[in-house]
Amino acid sequence: MNIKEIIRKKRDGGVLNEDEVRCLIRGYHREEIPDYQMAAFLMAAFLRGLSEEETSWLTKEMLTSGQRLDLSEMDSPVVGKHSTGGVGDKVSIVLAPLVASAGVVVPMIAGRGLGHTGGTIDKLESIPGFNASLDIITFRDILWEVGTAITAQGEEIAPVDRRLYSLRDATETVESRGLIVSSIMSKKLSEGLQGLVLDVKCGKGAFLKREDEARDMAETMVRIGNSFGVRTVAVITDMEEPLGKAVGNALEVRECINLLKGRGEPDLEEVVLFLGAWMLYIAEEVSESQELGAFRLAREGIDQERFYQKIARLKELLASGEAMKKFVEMVEAQGGRAEVVVSPGLLPIARNIHTIEATTEGYIQTVDAEKVGTATMLLGGGRMRMDDVIDHSVGVVLLKKSGQFVKQREPLAVIHYNDDERLKEAETLLKDSFRIGPESPPEKKMIRGVVV
Amino acid sequence: MNIKEIIRKKRDGGVLNEDEVRCLIRGYHREEIPDYQMAAFLMAAFLRGLSEEETSWLTKEMLTSGQRLDLSEMDSPVVGKHSTGGVGDKVSIVLAPLVASAGVVVPMIAGRGLGHTGGTIDKLESIPGFNASLDIITFRDILWEVGTAITAQGEEIAPVDRRLYSLRDATETVESRGLIVSSIMSKKLSEGLQGLVLDVKCGKGAFLKREDEARDMAETMVRIGNSFGVRTVAVITDMEEPLGKAVGNALEVRECINLLKGRGEPDLEEVVLFLGAWMLYIAEEVSESQELGAFRLAREGIDQERFYQKIARLKELLASGEAMKKFVEMVEAQGGRAEVVVSPGLLPIARNIHTIEATTEGYIQTVDAEKVGTATMLLGGGRMRMDDVIDHSVGVVLLKKSGQFVKQREPLAVIHYNDDERLKEAETLLKDSFRIGPESPPEKKMIRGVVV
Repeated sequence: MNIKEIIRKKRDGGVLNEDEVRCLIRGYHREEIPDYQMAAFLMAAFLRGLSEEETSWLTKEMLTSGQRLDLSEMDSPVVGKHSTGGVGDKVSIVLAPLVASAGVVVPMIAGRGLGHTGGTIDKLESIPGFNASLDIITFRDILWEVGTAITAQGEEIAPVDRRLYSLRDATETVESRGLIVSSIMSKKLSEGLQGLVLDVKCGKGAFLKREDEARDMAETMVRIGNSFGVRTVAVITDMEEPLGKAVGNALEVRECINLLKGRGEPDLEEVVLFLGAWMLYIAEEVSESQELGAFRLAREGIDQERFYQKIARLKELLASGEAMKKFVEMVEAQGGRAEVVVSPGLLPIARNIHTIEATTEGYIQTVDAEKVGTATMLLGGGRMRMDDVIDHSVGVVLLKKSGQFVKQREPLAVIHYNDDERLKEAETLLKDSFRIGPESPPEKKMIRGVVV
Repeated sequence: MNIKEIIRKKRDGGVLNEDEVRCLIRGYHREEIPDYQMAAFLMAAFLRGLSEEETSWLTKEMLTSGQRLDLSEMDSPVVGKHSTGGVGDKVSIVLAPLVASAGVVVPMIAGRGLGHTGGTIDKLESIPGFNASLDIITFRDILWEVGTAITAQGEEIAPVDRRLYSLRDATETVESRGLIVSSIMSKKLSEGLQGLVLDVKCGKGAFLKREDEARDMAETMVRIGNSFGVRTVAVITDMEEPLGKAVGNALEVRECINLLKGRGEPDLEEVVLFLGAWMLYIAEEVSESQELGAFRLAREGIDQERFYQKIARLKELLASGEAMKKFVEMVEAQGGRAEVVVSPGLLPIARNIHTIEATTEGYIQTVDAEKVGTATMLLGGGRMRMDDVIDHSVGVVLLKKSGQFVKQREPLAVIHYNDDERLKEAETLLKDSFRIGPESPPEKKMIRGVVV
């Protein structure tokens, strides 16, 4: 078996077997296969597609290229969460401490932003002192101590995935289903999880625009997760509009603090509670099955009542301040200045603000998430390329979202900016993202479906 | 414009414009674009295809990446020839001196073998002392002095094409129409030609298996050649069976010497004379049009009588020994021991021979060129990879070809080999290449068509 045969097979639309995938990934890991041959393979895989089995083998090989966190000694169930990414998606920042405050261990290896989508790590790094580059030992120690920690993917975790990701970025092969799924799953499976809740986003601001595509990908990921012995559930959520009202790193952290204080945006809170309830639900399942001494796939039936009890439990933890307490613990454990929760002014603040207004009266039909995300990137809040440096202070705060009625000249959004040149481009795009019409639009459903 | 946009455009099936092609090739030439991005582009181009315009721009950029031979001071017309490659295709070795002996200058930058097809350079290098790595100055000097020279592509000629070819070889993107055409044409156009005859092979032993594909490619190449101001004609020839009877480097040189001595195989001689007559025909055209002070595309009508006069002229040059004289001059000018023409024993000779016999009586229907070529490669006479070393002595001599009747146990072919292990594999393949049946097969047509 050699790499040229593997490239040719994929080029001609063939399906690789397990040995071929192993040869490919191990050869690349050992640097026996050069970047240019892998690049040709990636493009062939992008255009020809990868089967679910190929995706699963890729996941396995990338996972075993690095270390896997061992949390088996912990008394509490270990449940992770991953989002396929969107605009204003700050869910993890609230969800991790919230679910940890319910006694579940939540290890979270998160990503940085690229293009119009933001990344949890960039957002957290707007907190002064916050260290999101934990080595695997420190990560584990904080998980033992606090019950949750959020870190970027370090050298030890799926190193082949890290190299492949850079190569995919350089070769325009990022948006391939099989490559995305194996990249996500190899990282998540290295977290030593018993359960995993996936937030698969669909709509204008997401990688997957259509709900059927999102469902399809969710089903693949759930099957792969379960096949690796991790109880996996996927929730399909809306990403037509930005989630919450803030888009931009420090601005989003502020919004998270507000939610932890009980003043959350309804759509953001809904997604946080729904995902969190699933995390608690499967945490209980895996605990029970552990007592039975075997892992059980509880596919047969979901206990609705039990699920809604979890929602109620999370609401209590938010209201009582327990979730906020856990957030503060986590930030402190990772070296961040937790005073930001009482003094948000400690977060980076842009020098200028600029308000955009409605040019016409009517109901807001939608706010295009991709455009708002791109506007934020143009302001300097995101990356065009992986090595761009981010300005944490800039971004957009929406004042209105779909379904709301606005009069002419009523403020729609506030741009936080540092650079006049960049403001212009961002303003045009932001204005363009609001669609206003005479009729009230149909109510938006944040939760589009669940794959159990 | 940046390379990622160019990759994405081709990935999504778009057609590049001239600026984008220039950016791609110049960026690669200046090493601003790394191999891995070019590899991703090549795979996208392989799977999405390249338009004729894109192919033409690629040709132009690769051509201008290097030097172009200036033969404009010569009194004689300059006409080149290129073959898309096949098994037993030793045409150039006879054709170049033959046409040069008629007073036409024939510069020939030729290739090495890869896979089941052989290469003119490898064949010539089986002549002791023969130097096929001429720098551009020496190449030009020999052309002035002798009227023909055959060399491998040096550093100065289309250097981007040389790098791209290695990358294509490593990434399984060799067999792309647009990439093949631009690679061939950029080399040929650098020869400073006024006219060009292309031998586009079709059949089992060729890159293009089907005649309609070969015609299509021939038409593209003829249009591109003409658009660069070179009077171009393509001849589509048969490559179901090996050309001539010898396959393998030194064995093929022997067969060439026999043809130059007037003892040629009929199919080989037919192809040599037909291509040679076209070279003389267009040499006359470009001379006449030069006298008129302008280049004329004589598409309107081919003068059949004049064409057959050229065939007759070439037959005379073979019969009179003029062609052989020119061959000797060329070999000597390139440092080779021209005594091989009288003492073919000076060529490398394999230690052993092995004869294979017919297992049944009947008419030979066909001898599969690809299998014979692969058998020769397995014996060590060809390359699996670009950096393999060749054994010039080994190969196959066919004793029978299609249309001939054989009795059971009658010898079909002789294998010349040095290694018992390799013999076994080659023998199996060679036996398998003969198809014998009760009926006489339809007569083979060597010349399948002409694109003027």
